[in-house]
Amino acid sequence: MSRLSEDELIQAIRKLLSGQAPGVVVGPGDDAALVEMGDRLGVLSTDMLVEGVDFELGLTSPHDLGYKALAVNVSDLAAMAASPRFALVALGLPKDVEPSWVVELYGGLREAADEYALSIVGGDLSSASQIVLSVTVTGEVSNRGAVTRAGAGPGDRLCVTGALGAAAGGLTLARERPRDASTAWGRDLLLALNRPVARVGEGQTLAQFGATAMIDLSDGLSLDLARMCRESGVGARVVSASIPIHPALAELARALPGVEPLRLAMEGGEDFELLATLPEESVAPAAATLGERFGTRLTDLGEILQAGEGILLAGSDGRDRPLEPRGWDHFAG
Amino acid sequence: MSRLSEDELIQAIRKLLSGQAPGVVVGPGDDAALVEMGDRLGVLSTDMLVEGVDFELGLTSPHDLGYKALAVNVSDLAAMAASPRFALVALGLPKDVEPSWVVELYGGLREAADEYALSIVGGDLSSASQIVLSVTVTGEVSNRGAVTRAGAGPGDRLCVTGALGAAAGGLTLARERPRDASTAWGRDLLLALNRPVARVGEGQTLAQFGATAMIDLSDGLSLDLARMCRESGVGARVVSASIPIHPALAELARALPGVEPLRLAMEGGEDFELLATLPEESVAPAAATLGERFGTRLTDLGEILQAGEGILLAGSDGRDRPLEPRGWDHFAG
Repeated sequence: MSRLSEDELIQAIRKLLSGQAPGVVVGPGDDAALVEMGDRLGVLSTDMLVEGVDFELGLTSPHDLGYKALAVNVSDLAAMAASPRFALVALGLPKDVEPSWVVELYGGLREAADEYALSIVGGDLSSASQIVLSVTVTGEVSNRGAVTRAGAGPGDRLCVTGALGAAAGGLTLARERPRDASTAWGRDLLLALNRPVARVGEGQTLAQFGATAMIDLSDGLSLDLARMCRESGVGARVVSASIPIHPALAELARALPGVEPLRLAMEGGEDFELLATLPEESVAPAAATLGERFGTRLTDLGEILQAGEGILLAGSDGRDRPLEPRGWDHFAG
Repeated sequence: MSRLSEDELIQAIRKLLSGQAPGVVVGPGDDAALVEMGDRLGVLSTDMLVEGVDFELGLTSPHDLGYKALAVNVSDLAAMAASPRFALVALGLPKDVEPSWVVELYGGLREAADEYALSIVGGDLSSASQIVLSVTVTGEVSNRGAVTRAGAGPGDRLCVTGALGAAAGGLTLARERPRDASTAWGRDLLLALNRPVARVGEGQTLAQFGATAMIDLSDGLSLDLARMCRESGVGARVVSASIPIHPALAELARALPGVEPLRLAMEGGEDFELLATLPEESVAPAAATLGERFGTRLTDLGEILQAGEGILLAGSDGRDRPLEPRGWDHFAG
C-alpha cells in the first residue's frame, strides 16, 4: 500500500464502481450512501475498527470499544442529517479472546444502540488474528432533508459543532501521561476518546437551517475539510484564531511540553463533530438553536471560496497560508 | 474462545440484544434480519471473510474472492426469499498489499453486483494484519413473502436445491491434489468453491410454493439443519440415500482415497444451496418449476418430525441414527 494513499485508493475504487445504479441517490464517497426507500431515503454506512490500528486493547475497555464502534457509525448518519434505525455487527476474534470480553463488548454496543434509539438486528462472527469489528448502520431521512458533502458554495460560512482535538489529546494522554488520567481535564480527554458523541440532533437541526454541505470530523479538520471542498468543488479560508480548541488541551500541553493544541485540533481526528456549511444569515440562529436544544456550541470558522482560491489558513499575523490536508490516513507511514 | 462454540456465543449475544425493538420483524439469528420499510420489508445481512480462516490467498484470486464475498451475502437474502438491492464493503488490508490486488478484488465485487442486480453504495478501508473483507447487503421482500428459519412444522418435507459437497471438494482438491485442477471434474469443484451461486430466483420460487422455513447451506447440511430445527422447534429425519452428492466427488474420491463424498456433502459447507421445508403436495410442482425456470434440481431429503424425535439420519440398512450437527465452526479446534 506504499504507493497509494487511502484517498487515492478510494478514488480508484469509486471509479470502478461507477455507472448506472437504479435507486442510488448518493453512492460511495460521502459519509453514508443514500438510496430510494418508498417516500423517504434510506441511509447506509459501514465502518471497520481494527485492533492495533483503530484501537489498542490496553487503552480501551471492551464496553467502551463496543459503544464507540456504534457511535462512530451513527456519526456518519448524523452527517447526512439522518436518523439511525438498524445496525449489523460483524466481529473477527482471535481464539484466545475470553467469552466475557465479547459479552462486555456487546454490552457497550447495546448501550449505544439504546442511546441512539436503534436496534442491532444481525451480525457475523469469524476468527481472526487480531480483533476486527465491522459495524453497519442504516437510517432514514426525508427526500429533501439529506445533506451531503457536495453542496457547499462560495460565500457560505464554514461552521463546526463542539470543540476539537480532545480525542487525539485523550490518546496522547493514555499513551504518554497515564498518571494524569484521573484529573478532571484528563477524564474529559479520555471521555472524548472512548465515548464519542454522534451529533444526530445537531445534524438534523443544521439541515433545517439550510446547511448546504456536512461531514463528520473522523480524520481531522484539515483532511475532512479537504474532502468536503473536493466533493463540493470549492475552496475555503479557515481563521486559525477561530478554531475551537478543546480547553483541556491547554492542561495537556502544560503536562507534556511537546503537545501542540492547535495541531491536535486541526489534525487529530476522531472528534466526530460536524463540519457544516451554512448561508451567512443562518449561522446566528442555528448557533442559538443548537445551544438551546443540545447545549452544543456552533463556531464560525471562516468562509467557502471558489475552488481556484484553494484551502487557506488565516494566521494571527493576518497572512493566509495553504492549509495542507494532514490527518489520519490508514495507510500512511 | 476455547470454552464456547460459535453457536453458544451467538446465543449469549442474542440474549444480550433481546428486548423491544420497534420496526424489527426478525432480529439476530436468522439468515438475515427483517425490518419494516414502508409497505415492504427491508432485509439486512452481513458477513466477514478473514484471510487464513475463510479463504487462503494462494488458493483464490482477488477477483474470485470479491465475487464470492458478495455472492455469499446475497445467498443469505435468497434464503429469506428476498431480492438484493444494495451492498456495503468494509476492507482491512495489510500495508504490503498491492493496489492492483485491491482493484481486482473490487472488479470481482462489481461483477457479482452486476450479476445479482445490486449496487455497491459504500464502504470503509482500514489497515489490518491480515486481509479482512466485511460485506453487508440490503434487500427487500413483500410483507408476506419472507421465509425465515423458524416456520417448519412436523409433516413438512425437507428439500434441498442443487448438489452438495462440491465446494468442500474444491478446497480439498486445491490443497491436496492441485494437479487435477484442470480436469473437467476438478474445474467443476473449483468453480463451486470460488464462484458460488446465490439461489435468489429459487428462494423466491420456493416461497411462492409455500416454503415454511428456509436456510442457506453455508456451514454444511448437518449443522445448518440443526439450526433450522432449533429455530423451528422441530426434529427431522434425513434419508441418507437421498442426499444429492455432487457427482464430481466420486472422481475426487478415486484420486484421493481418504475422501468420503457423503461426509463432504453433509458437513462440508459453503455450498450455498437452499434447504427448505415445504408442504408435501408442493414438492413435485416446486421441483418442476425450479427445473424449468432455473435448471436447478430440487431433492426431497426426508421429513420434519416433532422436536422430541430428534434429528435422525436413516441409513441404507433401514436404521435411524442421530445426525450429529458437525460442520464448520469458526472457533472449533
